[in-house]
Amino acid sequence: MRLRVTVMLRQGVLDPQGEAVRHALGALGFTGVRSVRQGKVIDLELSDTDPEAALARGREMCEKLLANTVIERYEVEIL
Amino acid sequence: MRLRVTVMLRQGVLDPQGEAVRHALGALGFTGVRSVRQGKVIDLELSDTDPEAALARGREMCEKLLANTVIERYEVEIL
Repeated sequence: MRLRVTVMLRQGVLDPQGEAVRHALGALGFTGVRSVRQGKVIDLELSDTDPEAALARGREMCEKLLANTVIERYEVEIL
Repeated sequence: MRLRVTVMLRQGVLDPQGEAVRHALGALGFTGVRSVRQGKVIDLELSDTDPEAALARGREMCEKLLANTVIERYEVEIL
């Protein structure tokens, strides 16, 4: 079973990487880019066959390792 | 209009970050994690109002800045 975990900084948390991308896009001539937020995506191939169990394990992985829940939020979905 | 760009290493390109996550998950007791690939996600808020134009601009941004298309593949979607 394939899972996709998406981890983004929470709203209000400064995102210097996203700001750097926004500036670079402007320098390349892309106008009208109002905001950019950058995060990470982690694709996992699990041996689980039950979708609910896989999602629950994915969320546990986020809480324990993949996300810093103080400043980041995460989404887990089946691919 | 909000766009989400997802950039992943192409299949066959070594992903040390993903491997490190796989090992760390194993060390934390998560069994059955067959493979892990890590990539980046970039959420853009654009002034475009036409979805097709926004997607085309997003793809152009990937070609010019956001992805290294030699080793990475990208997906652009409307949020």
